[in-house]
Amino acid sequence: MFAHHTAPHGLFTHGGPARSWTVSTAKPVSYRVGFSPGVFDPSSSALARAGAVDGGPAPARRLLVVEERVDMLYGDLIRAYCDARGTDEYAIHVLPAHERLKTMDSVFSVVAAMDRFGLDRRREPVVAVGGGVLLDIVGLACSLYRRSTPYVRVPTTLIGLVDAGVGAKTGVNFGAGKNRLGTYHPAAETLLDPGFLATLDERHVSNGMAEILKIALIKDAELFELLENHGSALVADRFQPAGATGEEVLGRAVHGMLEELHDNLWEHRLERVVDYGHSFSPTLEMRALPALLHGEAVALDMALTTVIAARRGLVTDEQRDRVLDVMRALGLPVTHPLCAPDVLKEALADTVRHRDGRQRLPLPVGIGGSVFVNDLTTGELARAAGDLSALGEVASHA
Amino acid sequence: MFAHHTAPHGLFTHGGPARSWTVSTAKPVSYRVGFSPGVFDPSSSALARAGAVDGGPAPARRLLVVEERVDMLYGDLIRAYCDARGTDEYAIHVLPAHERLKTMDSVFSVVAAMDRFGLDRRREPVVAVGGGVLLDIVGLACSLYRRSTPYVRVPTTLIGLVDAGVGAKTGVNFGAGKNRLGTYHPAAETLLDPGFLATLDERHVSNGMAEILKIALIKDAELFELLENHGSALVADRFQPAGATGEEVLGRAVHGMLEELHDNLWEHRLERVVDYGHSFSPTLEMRALPALLHGEAVALDMALTTVIAARRGLVTDEQRDRVLDVMRALGLPVTHPLCAPDVLKEALADTVRHRDGRQRLPLPVGIGGSVFVNDLTTGELARAAGDLSALGEVASHA
Repeated sequence: MFAHHTAPHGLFTHGGPARSWTVSTAKPVSYRVGFSPGVFDPSSSALARAGAVDGGPAPARRLLVVEERVDMLYGDLIRAYCDARGTDEYAIHVLPAHERLKTMDSVFSVVAAMDRFGLDRRREPVVAVGGGVLLDIVGLACSLYRRSTPYVRVPTTLIGLVDAGVGAKTGVNFGAGKNRLGTYHPAAETLLDPGFLATLDERHVSNGMAEILKIALIKDAELFELLENHGSALVADRFQPAGATGEEVLGRAVHGMLEELHDNLWEHRLERVVDYGHSFSPTLEMRALPALLHGEAVALDMALTTVIAARRGLVTDEQRDRVLDVMRALGLPVTHPLCAPDVLKEALADTVRHRDGRQRLPLPVGIGGSVFVNDLTTGELARAAGDLSALGEVASHA
Repeated sequence: MFAHHTAPHGLFTHGGPARSWTVSTAKPVSYRVGFSPGVFDPSSSALARAGAVDGGPAPARRLLVVEERVDMLYGDLIRAYCDARGTDEYAIHVLPAHERLKTMDSVFSVVAAMDRFGLDRRREPVVAVGGGVLLDIVGLACSLYRRSTPYVRVPTTLIGLVDAGVGAKTGVNFGAGKNRLGTYHPAAETLLDPGFLATLDERHVSNGMAEILKIALIKDAELFELLENHGSALVADRFQPAGATGEEVLGRAVHGMLEELHDNLWEHRLERVVDYGHSFSPTLEMRALPALLHGEAVALDMALTTVIAARRGLVTDEQRDRVLDVMRALGLPVTHPLCAPDVLKEALADTVRHRDGRQRLPLPVGIGGSVFVNDLTTGELARAAGDLSALGEVASHA
């Protein structure tokens, strides 16, 4: 009835007079991530131009969604920037954001702001300024608004800079499920400015260090050595100024993350090394709310799986101790009362559901390598939890 | 630092030591739509196998989301089918669905059912059985659940068969905005069974006829003639049995729709002929809730734009009258008190926002052709509204 298309995108009809059809197509996705120090310095055009339609002028109208705490610290600077860069019309929607407010209600608050602003979804990318939770909320709101609205990310936390700000995932919690609802909708552009870390409290710097350590452990031994030698100083100084070492640490973390994401953005391949530290941690984080930050839960997961790997001979006891020592030096926990066999067993079951019925559990191999296993037993899990508890005790009495 | 990729999918670093990156990739999407009469007949394996992982067995567990009214009429049949086809475990989530319940709360109800069922998102595609509103709700829930869960559509209304069931859009209303929140997430498989129309009330058959008429008007003069000659009989008989004419009408409508969608699934190209009838109707439908069904609002929009086209000489007065006569024969309205200049002006403004600042208004050219215009004036709109009101008067007194 109609010609078949020879291009990879096409509509194919089957069986004589059209009674069934197959639609085959592909959605192109492209996004930019880059360092942009002094992002609110009026002399910098990066933010004003961010997300502009190809070759077009800087958007004349801007809706910015700014995390409450960030607005207190940087609100004046942000307004001065918009005024100085000649943005005709802008509105700032201030939103409190933390793990317990990572809900659809927060998404609705952003959507209502978009409606009030009369946002033109094709020409006026929303600008999200805040930590990982805020970026995930705004990303989901933009993903849903009129079935897709572009946005720009300006992460203000370390975890935002190296993790939430560079990937494609959006999401909120629902019921007991962490990120149970979400989409893949990367920001058109992400501007990374380490200057925000100056006002971040030390615990949140440590929190971000957990994701940097993750990249180091699974694929970048040099990055691990940088953390081993400079990690505690970087935390204490909050990367101010970043300097050559700080820049290398941040750049390697972002690069490692993007390298793993770029050909598996929709996670069709379920064996993802960047899931390291994210097998048990979602349940731990949700159960402990608000006691554990995301990166702290990830650190506990990495500590546990490092101990499991040591018991399997995949890492030596000396390597295991180096890893745990770096965690402590970065201000991260290595043990927690929730790391008990029953909780861990349940956490693994939920992750198995998420990974199509198999564990696909990344374990470290030495430092900078990894392997996926599917045969972790509950006995092994219980013994590792015991080890970890003992190692934690030793450390806290040392 | 890392090799550039030559494939279209890749990660590109810029400017020496990695300080900025571009991720370029594409998400492959493929889905099937096909007629499947007797979909709940135990001798048919189509539904049992629908959405199975390539070459794999029929899913052993199934969550079905069934519209309340459909469950009353077909619930026993559905349960008998699942039992007969040996589905090990199944649950039926019954959901009331109509335009005023097209909300995120309904989406949450489906999500909670998925959680209770302990759905394995990779192996257990959800089955949605109902009309367009239900399909849009379940589609959005599946799109969001764990950032994407496959599903199967079984449309039970005519509008579902030819429109909501064959495209990629999901969505719910938010505030005053129709489908303000949504995604593009086509069902892995859609099974079209015209048998459901037997229990559909006549008004809802007419409702679906509006979308069939749309395809006829913009691209298929033969389909228009079929409607002109057989439309009122098909409505009265509810396509029971579909017969050669009914099958041709349904097949042409589905084919025409898919032909327009398949290379523009994400609507990157804003000039879409299938938007015909959907420029003014979203506002009319939302304002009139629950008085106007979707297809009725679409018919009003098509009547209005046919009159505009006649005033511009794009269609003859005789063609205009044929179109309005077919609408009446199909049981569709051609005028309504809401078709007043101020409402229409506002409706157009919202659509212009949705279409990147331009009207991109599809108008009919003769019967079976179309053109996009960007220069419709409010005066023209007011005169057309006056014409339409007069033409409607004439008809109602005839």
